[in-house]
Amino acid sequence: MDHLYEKTLHSETIYEGRIIDVRVEDVQLPNGKQSKRELIDHPGAVAIIAQTPDEKILAVRQYRKALGKAIVEIPAGKLEQGEAPEVTAVRELEEETGYTCEKLEKVISFYTSPGFANELVHLYVAKGLSKKGDQSADEDEFLDLLHLSLEEMEEMLVTQEIHDAKTAYALLYLNMKRSK
Amino acid sequence: MDHLYEKTLHSETIYEGRIIDVRVEDVQLPNGKQSKRELIDHPGAVAIIAQTPDEKILAVRQYRKALGKAIVEIPAGKLEQGEAPEVTAVRELEEETGYTCEKLEKVISFYTSPGFANELVHLYVAKGLSKKGDQSADEDEFLDLLHLSLEEMEEMLVTQEIHDAKTAYALLYLNMKRSK
Repeated sequence: MDHLYEKTLHSETIYEGRIIDVRVEDVQLPNGKQSKRELIDHPGAVAIIAQTPDEKILAVRQYRKALGKAIVEIPAGKLEQGEAPEVTAVRELEEETGYTCEKLEKVISFYTSPGFANELVHLYVAKGLSKKGDQSADEDEFLDLLHLSLEEMEEMLVTQEIHDAKTAYALLYLNMKRSK
Repeated sequence: MDHLYEKTLHSETIYEGRIIDVRVEDVQLPNGKQSKRELIDHPGAVAIIAQTPDEKILAVRQYRKALGKAIVEIPAGKLEQGEAPEVTAVRELEEETGYTCEKLEKVISFYTSPGFANELVHLYVAKGLSKKGDQSADEDEFLDLLHLSLEEMEEMLVTQEIHDAKTAYALLYLNMKRSK
């Protein structure tokens, strides 16, 4: 047993939503005392680094109600139940951008907020991009498709039009690939 | 008005916790239809890249109830109400590692999960590190302090002992700095 392990004494699901569930747990700490943990269950998500043949990066501008503003992100979306992340990635890329790809290469997976949520994001690079059709986002999803250079996106990090972890990671990754 | 804006029709806070609040909102979409948004309010957090004079990176191993396992992360912690992120960063570094620093340099801020949460993480590099005392973590916080090389931490990314966004970003950042 891990000496840092926290034993669950009581677990209550206080909200079951469309995307997230909320659990509140009483736990026994390593020193025997008790504490409370507030936890979000999330199905996980994918994000896709997709560059067109002329080296533009596909990005979407989307209103984020949690932030109260629209930001620019790389294409992304949450996993459907039981869905393999690669399947989600191909679907989300096509829905959000109208592009399809020949191949996906995994970059990394990371938990976005391990202190309170189990959301795991799988980041891919899409290779062999071709335009298949128009966007066909979910019925409650509205977004602008953008074709941006790495320099334009790095500038948007400064102005905070780009402001999220997966997109920031993707830009640092592309910057590093380029300088090698 | 942003053409992607979602107007709040109804907002209900369904949980007020110690760290997070949970809100469920009915919104009016750009096409006039309605949808539901499940939102987490979080006070924000800091994370600190801290290297000792012998180039070891300070890291903490901590049990994450949301993940059901312990992972290794760079030192981090959430903002107290009204607290400037730099103040949080100095405090968390000292509490979690026993080290103090002469200076903080901002690397980036990013939202971890903009689809459902407003948690903003501020990432710093701590300069001029010196050992001040022992760890003195919060009373419900148990962690192991580790001194690791960049190579050791990159290997832990592969084995998924390191598995979170802020630490992954920090390692990519350090890798890039080194190769320049």
